[in-house]
Amino acid sequence: MEYRRLGKSGLKLSTLSLGSWVTFHQQIDDSKADMLMGLAYDRGINFFDNAEAYAMGESEKMMGRVLKKKQWDRTSYVVSSKVFFGIHGEDNKPTQRGLSRKHLVEACNEALQRLQTDYLDLYFCHRPDKETPIEEVVWTMNHLIQQGKILYWGTSEWSAAEIMEAFMVAEKYRLIGPTMEQPQYNLFERTKLEKDYLTIFKDVGLGTTIWSPLASGLLTGKYNDGIPEGSRLDDKKMEWLKNNILNDDKIERVRNLQNVADELGTSLATLSIAWTISNPNVTTAILGATRKEQLEENLKALEVYPKLTPEVKDRIDEIMGTKPVLPMF
Amino acid sequence: MEYRRLGKSGLKLSTLSLGSWVTFHQQIDDSKADMLMGLAYDRGINFFDNAEAYAMGESEKMMGRVLKKKQWDRTSYVVSSKVFFGIHGEDNKPTQRGLSRKHLVEACNEALQRLQTDYLDLYFCHRPDKETPIEEVVWTMNHLIQQGKILYWGTSEWSAAEIMEAFMVAEKYRLIGPTMEQPQYNLFERTKLEKDYLTIFKDVGLGTTIWSPLASGLLTGKYNDGIPEGSRLDDKKMEWLKNNILNDDKIERVRNLQNVADELGTSLATLSIAWTISNPNVTTAILGATRKEQLEENLKALEVYPKLTPEVKDRIDEIMGTKPVLPMF
Amino acid sequence: MEYRRLGKSGLKLSTLSLGSWVTFHQQIDDSKADMLMGLAYDRGINFFDNAEAYAMGESEKMMGRVLKKKQWDRTSYVVSSKVFFGIHGEDNKPTQRGLSRKHLVEACNEALQRLQTDYLDLYFCHRPDKETPIEEVVWTMNHLIQQGKILYWGTSEWSAAEIMEAFMVAEKYRLIGPTMEQPQYNLFERTKLEKDYLTIFKDVGLGTTIWSPLASGLLTGKYNDGIPEGSRLDDKKMEWLKNNILNDDKIERVRNLQNVADELGTSLATLSIAWTISNPNVTTAILGATRKEQLEENLKALEVYPKLTPEVKDRIDEIMGTKPVLPMF
Amino acid sequence: MEYRRLGKSGLKLSTLSLGSWVTFHQQIDDSKADMLMGLAYDRGINFFDNAEAYAMGESEKMMGRVLKKKQWDRTSYVVSSKVFFGIHGEDNKPTQRGLSRKHLVEACNEALQRLQTDYLDLYFCHRPDKETPIEEVVWTMNHLIQQGKILYWGTSEWSAAEIMEAFMVAEKYRLIGPTMEQPQYNLFERTKLEKDYLTIFKDVGLGTTIWSPLASGLLTGKYNDGIPEGSRLDDKKMEWLKNNILNDDKIERVRNLQNVADELGTSLATLSIAWTISNPNVTTAILGATRKEQLEENLKALEVYPKLTPEVKDRIDEIMGTKPVLPMF
Repeated sequence: MEYRRLGKSGLKLSTLSLGSWVTFHQQIDDSKADMLMGLAYDRGINFFDNAEAYAMGESEKMMGRVLKKKQWDRTSYVVSSKVFFGIHGEDNKPTQRGLSRKHLVEACNEALQRLQTDYLDLYFCHRPDKETPIEEVVWTMNHLIQQGKILYWGTSEWSAAEIMEAFMVAEKYRLIGPTMEQPQYNLFERTKLEKDYLTIFKDVGLGTTIWSPLASGLLTGKYNDGIPEGSRLDDKKMEWLKNNILNDDKIERVRNLQNVADELGTSLATLSIAWTISNPNVTTAILGATRKEQLEENLKALEVYPKLTPEVKDRIDEIMGTKPVLPMF
Repeated sequence: MEYRRLGKSGLKLSTLSLGSWVTFHQQIDDSKADMLMGLAYDRGINFFDNAEAYAMGESEKMMGRVLKKKQWDRTSYVVSSKVFFGIHGEDNKPTQRGLSRKHLVEACNEALQRLQTDYLDLYFCHRPDKETPIEEVVWTMNHLIQQGKILYWGTSEWSAAEIMEAFMVAEKYRLIGPTMEQPQYNLFERTKLEKDYLTIFKDVGLGTTIWSPLASGLLTGKYNDGIPEGSRLDDKKMEWLKNNILNDDKIERVRNLQNVADELGTSLATLSIAWTISNPNVTTAILGATRKEQLEENLKALEVYPKLTPEVKDRIDEIMGTKPVLPMF
Repeated sequence: MEYRRLGKSGLKLSTLSLGSWVTFHQQIDDSKADMLMGLAYDRGINFFDNAEAYAMGESEKMMGRVLKKKQWDRTSYVVSSKVFFGIHGEDNKPTQRGLSRKHLVEACNEALQRLQTDYLDLYFCHRPDKETPIEEVVWTMNHLIQQGKILYWGTSEWSAAEIMEAFMVAEKYRLIGPTMEQPQYNLFERTKLEKDYLTIFKDVGLGTTIWSPLASGLLTGKYNDGIPEGSRLDDKKMEWLKNNILNDDKIERVRNLQNVADELGTSLATLSIAWTISNPNVTTAILGATRKEQLEENLKALEVYPKLTPEVKDRIDEIMGTKPVLPMF
Repeated sequence: MEYRRLGKSGLKLSTLSLGSWVTFHQQIDDSKADMLMGLAYDRGINFFDNAEAYAMGESEKMMGRVLKKKQWDRTSYVVSSKVFFGIHGEDNKPTQRGLSRKHLVEACNEALQRLQTDYLDLYFCHRPDKETPIEEVVWTMNHLIQQGKILYWGTSEWSAAEIMEAFMVAEKYRLIGPTMEQPQYNLFERTKLEKDYLTIFKDVGLGTTIWSPLASGLLTGKYNDGIPEGSRLDDKKMEWLKNNILNDDKIERVRNLQNVADELGTSLATLSIAWTISNPNVTTAILGATRKEQLEENLKALEVYPKLTPEVKDRIDEIMGTKPVLPMF
C-alpha cells in the first residue's frame, strides 16, 4: 500500500480507503462487512470512512461492531464521521441537522457511541450550511479537538470560498482550520479538484478524501447495457441518481474509455480509480466495494496509476471532454 | 410550526416557545406541566425556557422531571436556564447571586442537576450586574462552553451598550460573544427591540427570546373588567405587577385593541402574540400558558401574524401610542 | 456583616474573615475549629483562608473536616489555598516548592483533597518565585481556571512590579490576570497598601485579603507586659517573630495607642482591626482568633471603624509614626 | 545533589539523572531497576528519563512497575516520555510514528498507561518530523498541557532552526513553546550545545537533558582494548553504533584523556560526565548505568566538575580536538 499525507498535516492515509455509503447495512450484513474490512486492513488500507447520514446511523453501528470484533490497535487506523444531515431523514427536527454548535456537538457524541470509540480521527462538515456562520463551526470544531473528541476536522462539498473563509476565521481567532475536504472527484466531475481548489492546495494546504471515484458505478461500465437488476441504481430511492447518470451521452463515453482500459490490460473501474489517485492533490480515494473480488480488483489501481503517462491522460481527456479550462491569468 | 435562526447562530428555535415563569410549580403540578409540554412539543415547539429564579429552582426541577419522563431525544429540543437572582430569595448570600465567576459556575452546575441534563443549550445572564466586570462574564461563559456545559450564552434585560461591551470584550480576547438577549417585548414595551437594539441587530446579529408578549396577561383582556380571583395578579406577591399594570389608561387601550382582534376574527391574546412575532428581529415569543385551551389559542398566532398588514399595524400603533420615535440621524 | 467586592471582580467577601495561620491544628482541635467557624459563619463571615504551608497541610485537613461536617451550601462561602512553600518543611524536594507548573498543579490537587472540595474559590501564589517566569505562573493559573479547579487566582507578598508584570503577561497572551493580593497590613506595616500598590488599585483593580491585621498579636497589647506563657510567641519556632516584634520601641507605641482605644470605648485589638478595614482598598481582614470571646471581640471592629474620623486617624498616625510618605510627583 | 532550573522554567532537575535507553529491560530486570532507581532517588536524583521507543515500551512498563512499588510521593520526582518512533519497530504502521496529532495524543495516552501515572512531567518529540508541520506539534502539545496530561513539552535532536520555529509558532498563536531539548552532548559531540543553540540559550531560554554523556560508553575507556563480550556494543542490533565508534582515531584520543583523569584522581567516565555538566547550559546529564558501582562512580562527577579549571579544559580540548569554532561575527 502507498500512504500520503493528509494535506499539510502529519497524518498519513492509505491512497485507497474503504467507505460505507448507502451500501453498508442496506446491501450487506455484518459478516460481509467484517470480510471486506478485514481484507482492506490486511492490504494496508488504514482509513475507514463513514457519516451519520449513511443508512441513518446504521452504517456507523455496523462499522463499530466490526471494529470492536477485530480488536485492531486503535492507533493503526483512521475512522471518520460526518455531520450535517442528521439521522432521521425527513423527520429531522430543525436542531438535528446543519452545522449549529448544538448539532456538531450532539452528532459527534452520537457518532462516538455508534462507532464505539473515544474519538474520531476525522470529523467532516458533510455540506456547507448557509444558515450557520463559519465562525460557529470553526470554534466548535476547536472545542471538540481540545476536548479530545476529534483529532482533525474538515469539510465535504464546500466551495473554495467557504473553505478559505474557514481558514480566515481560524487565522483571525488563532484556531485550528480545516485539514481536509471530501469532494466528489472522477472522470465526470473534475472542476473542484482541478480548478477551484488549486489556490488552496498551493497556498494553504488541504487533504482530499475522494468520494465516488467511480461516479456512482457508472465508470465500472456496468450500466453500459442498461441497469442490472439488484444493482444500486435499481433501488427506488436512487431514482435521482439514475436520472442524473443516464440522461446524456455519458454511457457512450464510458464505452469509448473501455478501449483505453483494454490497451492497459485492466478493467474500466480500475482504470478510473487509478486515474483519480494519479492526481497528486488526492490524498485517498474511497472505495465503495461490496464484494471481495470487486475490492481486490479496485486495489489494483495502485499498480495501474503509474502507467498513466501524459499521453494516456491526453487520450482520456479527449474521450471524456471533462477537463476544466483554467483561466489564462 | 415555523422556525427561526437564533440571531446569526446556526440554532433554530420555534417561533413560539414555552416558558415557565412563576406559573410553573406554583400554579400547576407535574401532570399539568406534562400535558402542556407534551402538547407544545407535538405542535413543534422546540424551546423550553427556564431560570434558576423561577419558583426558586422548583420550576427547573419540575421541567427536569417531565423531560426525563417524556424521553424525547435530547437533540430535538432546546432548554435554557438563567443566572443572577439565585434560588434563595432574600436569604441569598452575597456569593449566591449576581454574575461573578463563582455564581455563574455554581448556578450552572446546579441548574444541570435540577434539569437532569448534561448541558444547557442556552444560558442567560438574567440581569446585568453592575458589580461584576463584563470581562469576567464573557470569560466564564467561554469556559463553560469549552467544558461542554453550555452551548450558547446570552443576556436578559441588558442595555444595548452592555451587550455591545460584551461583544467588544469577546473581540478583544478572541472569545465567543453573546448569541441572544431575552427582553420583554409587547404592545406596551417596544423601545428596546424597535429602537435600542437596532444597531446590534444590523451590525453584529442577536437572537431574541421574548418574555411577556402579553404584558403579564394585560393584553389578554382578562383585566378589562377588574382582577379575576385566582389569576396571577390576585397573588399577594404580584402586587408590584398589579400596580404597574393598572396605574394608567392601559386597560382603555386594550379595550380599543379588542376591535382590531374582532375584525381579524381572533382573540386579543392571539393578536398580541401575533403582533410580537411579526417583528423579524424576534426569534421566538415565550408563551406562559397554564391551560391546554390557552396554549392552543396562543398557537394560532402563527396563522394570524401574516394577516398583520402595514395598514393593520398602523391602526394598532395609533390605538396603543407606544411606537418608539427613531432619531432622525 | 458587610461585604466588599474582591477588587474589580464580581466576588464579594465579608469585610472580616477567618484565617488559619499556624494556629489551626497546632493550637486548637477539631471541636474548637468547628465552634469558631460556626460562629464566624453565623455572623456572616463567608471567607475561610488557608494555605498548604499552614501546619504542613494539617490546617487544610482540619478545615476540610469541619466544612464537611457543617454541610453548609458550598455556594455560600469562599475557601482558599496558597502554594509555594510545600508541605514538607525543610525536607521539601526542589520540585515540591515554588511556583513551577509542576508544583502549582500538584499543590492544587493536594489542597483539593485535604479540603475535600472540587474547587478552590481563591488560589494564591504564597510568595513570588524569582526562579519561575511569571509567564509560567499566569498560564498555569489559567489552565486551572479552565479545568474548573480554581475560580480566581492571586498573589501574596508580591511586589507591585511583580503584580503588574502578571497583568502585562495576561494582557499579552489574552489570559486572566490576578484578582487579589494577600499582603500584611497593620499599623506597623503600611507601605505596600498605602503606597506601593496605589497605581494598581487605581488603574487595574486588585482585591486585598489582609493577613496579620494585629501584627502577630502585638497590637492586642498582650505583649505589653512581656510574653505570656502558652501564647504564640512562647513557641520555640516563633523565635524569629518574637525578635522582630520586640526589638525596638514597638511596645511603647502600642501602649500609647491604648489611650485612643479607651477613648473610643473599645479594645486595642478591635481598634487595630477597625483601622485596617477603614482603608477602602482593603477587601477583607483575616482574623486569627482561636477563642470564642476573641472572635466576638474582633467582630466589633465593624461597628468601630465608622468612628475612625480623620481626626482620630491623625492621632493614630502620630502615635505610630508609620504612615508612608508619598512622592510629590 | 545539585539542582538546576530546566531552562527558563520553574522546574528544577537534579544535575545528574537516570535514563533508560536500550539498557533497561533488555539488560536488566525489575529487581535491578528497583535497586538502581532506589539508589538514585536516595542520592537526590529526581529525574527519570524514558521514551516509548526504549525497548518497544518495555522500558516504560518496567519503570512504571518500580515507581508503583516504591510509592515515592509523585510530586518528588520528574518522569518523561518521548514520542516519534512508535513501539512496533519496523512493523509500525504509518499512523503509529512521527509527530502527527494522532500519534502525539495516542502515544501520550499509551505512555501514561505503561508508566502507570496520570501525567508526564516532560514529553519530548524524540526527533523532528519533516512531514508534520511544527504548528500541528505546538498546538497538540498545548492541548495535552491544557488537559493536564503533560506539564512541559520539549524536543530531542531538533536543529536550532526547528526549535526556533516552534517558539515562533507559539508566539504567533499565543501558545506555550518548548521548554527543553534533549541533545547528545559529550566530548565527541559538542557542536549543537556549544554553537548551534547559543542564540536560543541567550535570547529565549532552553533547558537541556543530555543523553549519551559517555558517547555510548566510548568515554568510559571500556573499548580501549576492544569490545568486551556481553557489553552493549556486542549486541548485533548495535552494529551501527559499533561502526560509528570505532571507525577513526577516537580510541586513541580516549586513551590520552585517561592521563587527565589520572591527574585529577578520577576515572575516565567520571571525568567525562563532569566535563558535560560543567557547561552551564546543561540542565542535567542522563546516566545510563546498569550496575550499582557504576552509578555510584558516575555520581562522583558532581565533586569532580568544580575541579575542571580553564586550564584543565584547555588541555582536554587539545586532546579531543572537537571544540567547535564559533563564527567571528
